[in-house]
Amino acid sequence: MSINVGIAGLGVVAQGLLDLAKANTVQLDEITGDTVRVSRVASRRLRDEVELGSTAFSTDLNDLISDNDLDLVIELIGGTDAAYDLIKSCLNQGRGVITANKAVLATHGNELLAIARERNVPLAFEAAVAGGIPIIAALKTRFPANNIQWLTGIINGTCNYILTAMSEEGVAFEDALRTAQELGYAEADPTFDVGGMDAAQKLAILVALAFDVPIEIDEVYCEGIEDITIDDIRHADEFGYSIKHLAIGRQDDDVIEMRVHPALVPKENLLAKVNGVENAVQLGTANTGVLRFTGPGAGGHATASSVIADLTNIASGLYRHPGIGGSELNARSIGDVASPFFLSIAATDRPGVIASIGETLARHGISIASMVQKQEEVVRSVDTAVIPVVILTNSVVERELDQSLKELESLADIASPIKKIRVVDFA
Amino acid sequence: MSINVGIAGLGVVAQGLLDLAKANTVQLDEITGDTVRVSRVASRRLRDEVELGSTAFSTDLNDLISDNDLDLVIELIGGTDAAYDLIKSCLNQGRGVITANKAVLATHGNELLAIARERNVPLAFEAAVAGGIPIIAALKTRFPANNIQWLTGIINGTCNYILTAMSEEGVAFEDALRTAQELGYAEADPTFDVGGMDAAQKLAILVALAFDVPIEIDEVYCEGIEDITIDDIRHADEFGYSIKHLAIGRQDDDVIEMRVHPALVPKENLLAKVNGVENAVQLGTANTGVLRFTGPGAGGHATASSVIADLTNIASGLYRHPGIGGSELNARSIGDVASPFFLSIAATDRPGVIASIGETLARHGISIASMVQKQEEVVRSVDTAVIPVVILTNSVVERELDQSLKELESLADIASPIKKIRVVDFA
Repeated sequence: MSINVGIAGLGVVAQGLLDLAKANTVQLDEITGDTVRVSRVASRRLRDEVELGSTAFSTDLNDLISDNDLDLVIELIGGTDAAYDLIKSCLNQGRGVITANKAVLATHGNELLAIARERNVPLAFEAAVAGGIPIIAALKTRFPANNIQWLTGIINGTCNYILTAMSEEGVAFEDALRTAQELGYAEADPTFDVGGMDAAQKLAILVALAFDVPIEIDEVYCEGIEDITIDDIRHADEFGYSIKHLAIGRQDDDVIEMRVHPALVPKENLLAKVNGVENAVQLGTANTGVLRFTGPGAGGHATASSVIADLTNIASGLYRHPGIGGSELNARSIGDVASPFFLSIAATDRPGVIASIGETLARHGISIASMVQKQEEVVRSVDTAVIPVVILTNSVVERELDQSLKELESLADIASPIKKIRVVDFA
Repeated sequence: MSINVGIAGLGVVAQGLLDLAKANTVQLDEITGDTVRVSRVASRRLRDEVELGSTAFSTDLNDLISDNDLDLVIELIGGTDAAYDLIKSCLNQGRGVITANKAVLATHGNELLAIARERNVPLAFEAAVAGGIPIIAALKTRFPANNIQWLTGIINGTCNYILTAMSEEGVAFEDALRTAQELGYAEADPTFDVGGMDAAQKLAILVALAFDVPIEIDEVYCEGIEDITIDDIRHADEFGYSIKHLAIGRQDDDVIEMRVHPALVPKENLLAKVNGVENAVQLGTANTGVLRFTGPGAGGHATASSVIADLTNIASGLYRHPGIGGSELNARSIGDVASPFFLSIAATDRPGVIASIGETLARHGISIASMVQKQEEVVRSVDTAVIPVVILTNSVVERELDQSLKELESLADIASPIKKIRVVDFA
């Protein structure tokens, strides 16, 4: 028998997929027991460098829907609207779909997965999160998954590249971003990555799988890395922490927190050692301790390799529908999340300033784990001197912390706003 | 429908399994769509602390074979002979088997997997290697697997615990071993673990899956950690390396090397950061870069969790036969393996000794990457002084190195044998 595959898109992943499919025809056929054939490609434009041979090509995505010979469509165009229409049409026709598209899953995943389940056709998406790391497969095994208590991940390579460069080379955010752009690790408009939205979409998908809840992107608290400075990184380092852009999902009393933000990670934690564009996901489980997965988060061949893992699973009859949406998602808002905090306060160098910081925090029940006042970093202006005061608090509910910070910011001797960065005290 | 499961053994993993099965009945049923029921347990003796409820119990393993109501048998007795007989009988009856037993797979795995394939019944073994880490599942996806170039692993928790303790606390091997025994991380007779055999069995299984070759335990080169000293660890540290007990499988020109031995690992490598009883496996692939998996390598619940992952896969119709034995295993003998070496030489402190070491190595085409001669470590006896000379060579074929060492050992001023430890220069 022959399995006819259609591909939507001709970007980096699609080209990687065509490469791998060509190089591994024999193996693919052997694993699936069938002849796997890329019989049609549709993309807005043909790229000269792509050799399509006998594969049909058109610039109309609808041809993938109307070609009744296709058994499976692989969606690699990205974005939400056209991808949504394509996937939905294919599923409704009873045709399986593989997608590498986190955005369409984050926004329309519940509906699309419901259609797939109803029509009993596969909708597979290993490549949509953490590129080459087989994290979706691990989460789909479900048994360990349903015993997951938390997951933490470095799932945006751009952010991790920038923070690594800032930390290792001492360059400012803007300079690290420029280098990332030159190396192709960041887009011309980097907002989606450095603002955290990319990681938020991936987190919503991971959390849905880990806790069998719907994908709810709107419930993800999202913060980017734009405001992280070299000073923050240096101060965190002195306390024994690295600053990483983390995605965190945690279940506690049937309430789930989902948050994406820069975070202080203890240096001995594996996440602190994941550098550059590498991705990592940690699963904290009741039954199997902490499981850690690291690998390439992007790249044509790595991502295509995950697409092919889906393809062979489907072709071998080993696809299973993911456990997503079995329970409601009862979300915890960021104000209700407790964690230790790193605070960086610019205070006027006057007697009593430190005392009033300590007193204000204490009044809100916030205890200080470490405090460093950097005399050598005093910035002198005409008539005052400003000292940076860096504090590590013990665990506190964020809403309570925010109230104390508001009070502090109202003091004449303290500059506003006070920089706060969450600290990871589990994992 | 109901799935009747029989369990052989009542050790730590079996008890963990009974715990988890009880705690997760509803989830298991939901995932598999059937009622999963542990209907029979056979073990040489009943343990008082185990509550079996309505589950049938006997001390005769044959009852698991003769009970025709059993759909699946989970073998947790360990060892080779009785386990082999049990698994073979079950498979021949067309009954699926899950095993956590690396030893029986390392010695009889090819035959047992062939029977399973022929009878088309599952033989699953996620728990047999690296406890709670889903590495067998990852390797069974095969597509990335067939593009694996090498794998390296820390897959014996006892060795890793001992080396970590020696490194972090500066205690000698014997003392670290005694602590490991007290903590239950090492057996009363620790030979099987510290001598490397446990890791060798696991490596033979991983290599078979990674490269689709037979399981050939006799082709694994095996060395333990008994001769590693604190001085070795300290000297390696000065060169920027940690000493870890590694399992290495590597394919090159269709020849495969399989080796288990202490090795110097660059400190920035993730493996150098895996401490205590934790396990880790790295896969070096052509298409997805390096994938890393870490987690608990042992423990009742962790291992039982892997057994249950197998169980739910089988019950959901998602079992697939592993790709093992598709090609011949053409093994490279350890003498033909090239790697850099760490050498520790005790030399008499006489003029010309260092020169003759350098000259002998050079004559064999071996270049020195680093050399440290520790004047402060000179050991004085009645009429001579012995200096430790520590060398890091560039990559050299082991047979060639051995010849040069034999020449050096024949010199009057050099103590025999010279300590050599392999260095990992890939991964």
